[in-house]
Amino acid sequence: MDAHMQAAIEEAQLGLQEGGIPIGSVIVHKGRVIGRGHNRRIQQGSAILHGEMDALEKAGRQPAAVYRESVLYTTLSPCSMCTGAILLYGIPKVIVGENQTFMGEEDLLRSRGVEVEVLQDSTCIEMMRDFIAKRPELWNEDIGEVAPCEH
Amino acid sequence: MDAHMQAAIEEAQLGLQEGGIPIGSVIVHKGRVIGRGHNRRIQQGSAILHGEMDALEKAGRQPAAVYRESVLYTTLSPCSMCTGAILLYGIPKVIVGENQTFMGEEDLLRSRGVEVEVLQDSTCIEMMRDFIAKRPELWNEDIGEVAPCEH
Repeated sequence: MDAHMQAAIEEAQLGLQEGGIPIGSVIVHKGRVIGRGHNRRIQQGSAILHGEMDALEKAGRQPAAVYRESVLYTTLSPCSMCTGAILLYGIPKVIVGENQTFMGEEDLLRSRGVEVEVLQDSTCIEMMRDFIAKRPELWNEDIGEVAPCEH
Repeated sequence: MDAHMQAAIEEAQLGLQEGGIPIGSVIVHKGRVIGRGHNRRIQQGSAILHGEMDALEKAGRQPAAVYRESVLYTTLSPCSMCTGAILLYGIPKVIVGENQTFMGEEDLLRSRGVEVEVLQDSTCIEMMRDFIAKRPELWNEDIGEVAPCEH
C-alpha cells in the first residue's frame, strides 16, 4: 500500500470514528504531505467539506505553482465539486482509492489532461459499502441525490 | 436591479471592506434567501471559500430537493470549483453578474442542463476590474493562475 493512500485511509477512518462519512484525502507536493483531511458534513454541518476539499483547505493558501506539482490522493472517486477544485488549481495527478461504490467525474478530469489512477483498494471499497448500507440518507445528502423518501 | 443580485453585490462589497476579494453570492429557494456569502481567501486564509462556496456553506446542510429548486446568484462567472459544486447539488439556475473580467465554466454548466443567465452588470464589472488592477497577485492565486513572477 502506498503510504500516501494509507494516510488518506487513516483520515477516512478518523472521520468514521467521529461519526462522519468515511472519505479521506491527502495532497502531496514533491513527496511531502502539505494537506490532509476528511469529510466533515456531519462533524461540522458542512455542505462543502468533502475529504478532498478539507485537504485543500488544510493545505492553506498555496501559490499556483505548488498545486501544479502536487498529487491528490482520495479514498473515493471525486465528485463534481472536488473535481472542479482539482481543475481550478491545476493539480495534474489524482490517485483514487476506488470508484466501485461511487463513480465521480474521472472522465472530465482526464478530458482536461489530469492523470487519474484508480487502485480499487479493498479497504476503501468495504469502508464505503458498509457506510452506504448503514446510512444511505447521509450518503445521498453528501452527493446531492434525492433519496426515495424525498421524491 | 434584481434584489437578489443586489444582495450578492452587497456581499462582494462587504468582502472588499474586509480587505478581501470582492465576489459575492446568494442562494435563493422559492424566493427566500437560504445562504449568502463572499470570498474569504484573505480574511480566513481559505483556498476553498469562493463566494459561491461560502454561500453554500452558510446555507448549511440542505436536502437534495431544496437545491434542485434553488437559484444561485453570483457577481462573477463561476470557476470550475464553484461550477462543480453547482453540478453536485443539481442547482438548476445560475444568475451571473458578469463574465467580462473572468469567464468561468458556463459552457460546462449549460452542457449539463443548468440555465445560466449573464447580466453584464456594470457595478460587478467595475468592482472586479478595479480589484484585479490593484491586486493581480491575489486574483491569480484565487483562480490558480501562475503569475509572471512564479514562472
